[in-house]
Amino acid sequence: MTATRFFSDNAAAVHPAVMEAIAAANHVDTAYDGDALSQSLDAAFSELFETSCEVVWIPTGTAANSIILAHFVRPWQGILCHEEAHIEVDECGAPTFYSGGAKPMLLPGRGAKVDADALRRRIAGIRKDVHQVQPAAISITNATEYGLAWRPDEIGAIGEIARAEGMKLHMDGARFANAVAFLGCAPADVTWRAGVDALSFGFTKNGAMMAEALVFFGGRGGAGVRELKKRGGHLLSKGRFVAAQIRAMLTNDLWLANARAANAGAAALAAACGDRLLYPVEANELFVRLTADEAARLRGAGYDFYDWGEGAARLVVSWDQDAAAVAPLAAAIAAL
Amino acid sequence: MTATRFFSDNAAAVHPAVMEAIAAANHVDTAYDGDALSQSLDAAFSELFETSCEVVWIPTGTAANSIILAHFVRPWQGILCHEEAHIEVDECGAPTFYSGGAKPMLLPGRGAKVDADALRRRIAGIRKDVHQVQPAAISITNATEYGLAWRPDEIGAIGEIARAEGMKLHMDGARFANAVAFLGCAPADVTWRAGVDALSFGFTKNGAMMAEALVFFGGRGGAGVRELKKRGGHLLSKGRFVAAQIRAMLTNDLWLANARAANAGAAALAAACGDRLLYPVEANELFVRLTADEAARLRGAGYDFYDWGEGAARLVVSWDQDAAAVAPLAAAIAAL
Amino acid sequence: MTATRFFSDNAAAVHPAVMEAIAAANHVDTAYDGDALSQSLDAAFSELFETSCEVVWIPTGTAANSIILAHFVRPWQGILCHEEAHIEVDECGAPTFYSGGAKPMLLPGRGAKVDADALRRRIAGIRKDVHQVQPAAISITNATEYGLAWRPDEIGAIGEIARAEGMKLHMDGARFANAVAFLGCAPADVTWRAGVDALSFGFTKNGAMMAEALVFFGGRGGAGVRELKKRGGHLLSKGRFVAAQIRAMLTNDLWLANARAANAGAAALAAACGDRLLYPVEANELFVRLTADEAARLRGAGYDFYDWGEGAARLVVSWDQDAAAVAPLAAAIAAL
Amino acid sequence: MTATRFFSDNAAAVHPAVMEAIAAANHVDTAYDGDALSQSLDAAFSELFETSCEVVWIPTGTAANSIILAHFVRPWQGILCHEEAHIEVDECGAPTFYSGGAKPMLLPGRGAKVDADALRRRIAGIRKDVHQVQPAAISITNATEYGLAWRPDEIGAIGEIARAEGMKLHMDGARFANAVAFLGCAPADVTWRAGVDALSFGFTKNGAMMAEALVFFGGRGGAGVRELKKRGGHLLSKGRFVAAQIRAMLTNDLWLANARAANAGAAALAAACGDRLLYPVEANELFVRLTADEAARLRGAGYDFYDWGEGAARLVVSWDQDAAAVAPLAAAIAAL
Repeated sequence: MTATRFFSDNAAAVHPAVMEAIAAANHVDTAYDGDALSQSLDAAFSELFETSCEVVWIPTGTAANSIILAHFVRPWQGILCHEEAHIEVDECGAPTFYSGGAKPMLLPGRGAKVDADALRRRIAGIRKDVHQVQPAAISITNATEYGLAWRPDEIGAIGEIARAEGMKLHMDGARFANAVAFLGCAPADVTWRAGVDALSFGFTKNGAMMAEALVFFGGRGGAGVRELKKRGGHLLSKGRFVAAQIRAMLTNDLWLANARAANAGAAALAAACGDRLLYPVEANELFVRLTADEAARLRGAGYDFYDWGEGAARLVVSWDQDAAAVAPLAAAIAAL
Repeated sequence: MTATRFFSDNAAAVHPAVMEAIAAANHVDTAYDGDALSQSLDAAFSELFETSCEVVWIPTGTAANSIILAHFVRPWQGILCHEEAHIEVDECGAPTFYSGGAKPMLLPGRGAKVDADALRRRIAGIRKDVHQVQPAAISITNATEYGLAWRPDEIGAIGEIARAEGMKLHMDGARFANAVAFLGCAPADVTWRAGVDALSFGFTKNGAMMAEALVFFGGRGGAGVRELKKRGGHLLSKGRFVAAQIRAMLTNDLWLANARAANAGAAALAAACGDRLLYPVEANELFVRLTADEAARLRGAGYDFYDWGEGAARLVVSWDQDAAAVAPLAAAIAAL
Repeated sequence: MTATRFFSDNAAAVHPAVMEAIAAANHVDTAYDGDALSQSLDAAFSELFETSCEVVWIPTGTAANSIILAHFVRPWQGILCHEEAHIEVDECGAPTFYSGGAKPMLLPGRGAKVDADALRRRIAGIRKDVHQVQPAAISITNATEYGLAWRPDEIGAIGEIARAEGMKLHMDGARFANAVAFLGCAPADVTWRAGVDALSFGFTKNGAMMAEALVFFGGRGGAGVRELKKRGGHLLSKGRFVAAQIRAMLTNDLWLANARAANAGAAALAAACGDRLLYPVEANELFVRLTADEAARLRGAGYDFYDWGEGAARLVVSWDQDAAAVAPLAAAIAAL
Repeated sequence: MTATRFFSDNAAAVHPAVMEAIAAANHVDTAYDGDALSQSLDAAFSELFETSCEVVWIPTGTAANSIILAHFVRPWQGILCHEEAHIEVDECGAPTFYSGGAKPMLLPGRGAKVDADALRRRIAGIRKDVHQVQPAAISITNATEYGLAWRPDEIGAIGEIARAEGMKLHMDGARFANAVAFLGCAPADVTWRAGVDALSFGFTKNGAMMAEALVFFGGRGGAGVRELKKRGGHLLSKGRFVAAQIRAMLTNDLWLANARAANAGAAALAAACGDRLLYPVEANELFVRLTADEAARLRGAGYDFYDWGEGAARLVVSWDQDAAAVAPLAAAIAAL
C-alpha cells in the first residue's frame, strides 16, 4: 500500500518507535500534563534549538497554529499570511476562533512564500486608525504549502519587518522536519536566529500518531497559552501519551531520519517527472502537470493522489516511502 | 501502583484491548474521519442505544461537552446546569468559548443532581425580554460529580421540562458507563427514552487513551457539529486511532465490564468507610470524612487522593482496581 | 462651510426637520424600544417597501451591517463581499465580532460592484468540506463605495445566486437613498424584488443625527436580532430619539429629497471635472484624478477632501450642498 | 406626567440645557470623535476628578461597562461582581460578548454591595490552575442596584483586594451622580482615591439623551479601548452630538444638580413610606413593601412602577421629579 498512497502524509502509518513509546507510557504517572514526559519537553527542545524554549504539546496542527496566534494577537487585530496558507485555507477559520476574532490579512508570493516587498507594501497601505484592522503577527509556513523550504536569509527578511513593526513572527512547521532535512541547517537557523518567535513543530505527518509541539523561543510563551489549550479542550487527561510520541520523535533524531526518507522518495519521484514539475521539489511534495487522461491512467493502476486544479496533481511522499518505495510510481509516470 | 492510586480515573492505564486496537489501526486507510473505523460508529452506537444515532469522536470530554452545547445554543443564550457541574467548574469556560459566549446558569441540588423544582423556579424567574439571557439547553451529569447515578424517572422529569420549554437536554457522561453499570438498565433508559438529546459518552476514564463519543439521538446532530470540531482543532488527521479505541471499548461490552470492575472496587471500599461516607456510593467515587491527621497517615502509607474541602477527601477507583485491588486501602481506612 | 467641506457626508449637519422631531420626542413615553415611535417603524417601512417589513433601529451603520450579518451566518461560516466593501475595509472587523467569528470572503469587481461571474467562480472553487469555511451570506453595497448604483437586474443576478446556493443577500445601504434617487425606481425594485433579504438603510449621512434601520423583508427577521442589538449595547434607553429621527426622514420623503439634493450637487461638480472622473457619478461621491499639486492648490483655497491613493481624490457632496453650494469648487476645479 | 411616572429614570426627559447643547453642535466639525467637543473630554474630566483621566464617550451604559471590562480581562478570565449586578442580570451577556468570553463570577452582599469578606473567600476558593477560570477584574456598582451609595472606605476595602490580587477595579456608575450627591464627597473620593481603575459615568438616566463616559484614571486606558468601541459599532460618525451632551452635563455641575433633585424627590417619598422601606433610601430608588392590592390601587390612580418580586415594588425618581413633584404619590402611599 505504501507503493500506491500519495494523497497525503496525513494518512501515513505511525513509526514503530512511536508505537513502542506509546506502549511504554501505559503506566500510571499523573494526569493532564503534570507527568514526567510532558515536563521533560522544555529541556529536550531547548537542547535541540540551542536556546531556552517553552514547549506545550497539542494533538493537532490546527490547534497548534491557532493557539500560538491567539496568544500573539488580540481579538481585534490581524494576522498577515500567504493567501494560500493552511491557516487561511484549510482550518475552517480556527485561528479566528481561538483568537476571538482576529483577521487573516492575505499576501501574495510565489510557491506560497510570503513576498517581503509585498508584505512591506501591505503594511504601509493600512491606515493607522481604528477603522482598519491592525496586524499584530505574521505567519509563514516552512516548508510551504508547495513544498518549498524557506532559507534562513529569506526568513530573516520577514523577521526584520516583524521586529520593526512590533509584530510577532509565527512559523507553521507542519513539515518543518522536511524543510530542515532539505536545508541541512540547524533548526535554530530557520527559527529564532532568523526572528521566529514561535513554531508549530509538526510530528503527526512525519511518523507520530497525534502530536505537535508549540515551541516558544526565548521563554516568550507565558500567560494565556495553557488557558487557551485547556479552554479549547486539548489538555488530554492522559497527556503522557502525546508527550511520549514527541520524545520518541526526538530520540536519535528520528524526526530528521523520517523526513530525509520522505524527501529522498520525493526526489526520486521528481527525477521521473522532469518538466512536469510546477515547483522545485525541496521537501516531500510534488506538484506536477498531469492531464485528466494521465491522471485517470495512474489511478487505474492503483495510485491515489489529489488533483490540483485543472491539469495538475499533488503527490505527497511519506516517511515510510523511500526511493525504493516510489519506484513503481516513478516508472509509471515516466511511461505516460 | 494500582493499590495506591486513588486520585483520579483520569490517570489510569489504558486497557490492553484498547492498546491492541490502536496497534491494529496502524495501517493506511484515509485521513481525518473518512476511515472505515470512524464511519462505523453511527451503526455501532445505534445498536447499543436501540435508536438511530449520529456519532462523532473527539479526544476529550471538555471538547465533547462544549461542542454539543455550542451546537444547541446560540452565542447570546444560556445553559442551565448544576453549580458544581464540570462544565461550570473545571473546563476553563470551554462551553462559553465554543458557543461564542453562552452563559452557564447555575442551579442547586443535592449531590450535584439538578433539582427539578429548582430548575422550574429558575426558569420561571427569568424575564422573557432581551435584557436577560434566555437559556436554550440544560446539561446534567451522569454519574454526577459526587458519583450519584440519575434514575430514569429523575432524568425524565428534567426531560419533560426541557421539552416543555423548547430546550435541548445534554448529558455529560464522563462516567456514563459507571452509572449504567450501577443501574443495570439499558443505555437507552437513561438517555433518549428519558428525553436526552445528546450524550458526551466518555471512554478515557474507563480504559481508553483519548476517546469520547458525541452521541446525537434520533439524528438530531447535523449542521455545525463537524465544523465546530474542525474549527476547534479536534479533527485529528489520523483519526482512525481514536475511532479504534471506541470500537474496542464497545466490543464485548468492555465499557460495561470496566465500569463494573471500578464500581465493585468502590463498593468494597465503601464498606470499609461506614459512616465516613458523605454520599451513597453508586459509581466509582467516594467522598469521605477524613481529618487532616487521618489523611496524612494514609498518605504516609503511600495512598494518593485529593482533599475535598476541610475534613473530607475524594477517592476514585479505576477500571483496573477491583475489590481485591482496593483491599489494602480498605483495611487502612478501617484501621484509622 | 458647506461650500468647502467635501471630505465626508458623515460630518454633515442634521436636517432641521430631524432636529425638530428630536425636540418633539422629549416627553416621557416608555424606555428602550417600547415607545410609540419605535413601534411605528414596521408599518412605515412596510408601506415604503410595499411588503411586510420587520424593522429595528440602530445608531450606526457598522452596527446595522454587523447585526444583520450576524443574524444570517453562524460563527464558522463566511460572508462573500467585495474586497473594498466597507464591512471589510472600514469597520475594524465588526461583522466578524458580532457573528462570533464569520469570515469575510473577498471578491473583485469594477467600482466595488461584486461581479456575478467572479462570485459564481468563487463559490464553485470552495471545497464542500469542513476544512474550508462555507459562505452563508452575500453582502453588496448600494450605492457602492465608488458611488455607483446597482441596477435592479444586476442585483437580481446576485439574488439568484444567493437563492440557488441557500445564502442570504444583504445590502449595505449607507447611501441607499442616493442610489434610489439616481435610479428613480421604487425602493422595492432594488431590494426584495431583486432578492435582497435585509437592508441596512442609512439615514445618518443623509440628514439624521445617528439613525439607521435594519429592514428585514417578508418577516425574515426573528430570533436573535434584538438579542444581538441589546448584547452589543445598542438598545438605547431613550430609544424614542432614534426612532423619531427615522420617522422624520420618512415624512414627506425627506430621505429622497435630501439624496436628490446631494446627487444634484455631485452632478454639477461632475460636469466641471470632465475627464478627471475615474467613475461615472451616479450618487453623491466623485473620484477624480488630481495631482498632488492640484490637490494642494484646492486645499490652499480652503477645500477639504480625502486623497484617494496617488494622484486621485474623493469628493463627497452632502444633502446640504446642492448645485449652487458646489459652484465655487466646480469653478476652482475647472480653473486648475 | 412627571407626577405619575416612577418606573424608571431611563425614560425621563432630556434636560433643556442638553437639548440646547445638541442644537448648538449642529454645525460641521469633523467626523467620528475627531471634533473639538470629543477632544475636550479628557481635560474636563481630569479637572472634575483632580487627576489625569482618559475619557471615551459611548451611547449606552451597557457598552460602557462591557468595553471597560473587555479592556481589563482576557477572553479566558473572569469578572467578579455581585449576583444582582446589572452586568450580570440585565445586559444580555454583553460583557462576555465584548471580552470574547469572560465569565461573570458571582458574589453575595446586602443591597447589592459586594461583601469584602465574601470576595476574599471566593478568591481564596479558586484553584490556581488552568481548569478553573481565574478572575482578572472586580466590578461594583455605585449607587447599587438597590440605591445604596458605597462609602469611600467600603470601596477602599475592595480596592485593596483588587490591588493585592493584581486585578482591575471597575465601577458601574449608571447612577454615580446620585451616589456623589448623597455622599457630598469629591468624585475622586469614591473612585481613584479608593482604588477604582475605571468608571462608567452615566449621564443618560440623569438628564442626557444617550451619553456615558468611560473614565480611565491615571492614564490607564490605552490600546484596545477605541478598537473595541469601533468594532462594537459605537463610534458614531457625528460623535460631536454625544460629546456635546456630556459637556452640557458637566457645565455648572448640572450632573450634580440633577442628581440632587432626584435624590430630594426620593427622600420626600421615603418619608411617606415609613417602614415599608426595604432598604435605606440614599439615591433615587425606593424599594417598598406593597401588597398586590395596594399596588393595584396606586396603578388605578395612574402611577406607573415595577413590581419587585412578591409584595414589593420599585419606585424610581428622576431628575425632573423633585419633592413637589412626588407629593401626590407620597400622599397616595400615606393614605393606603
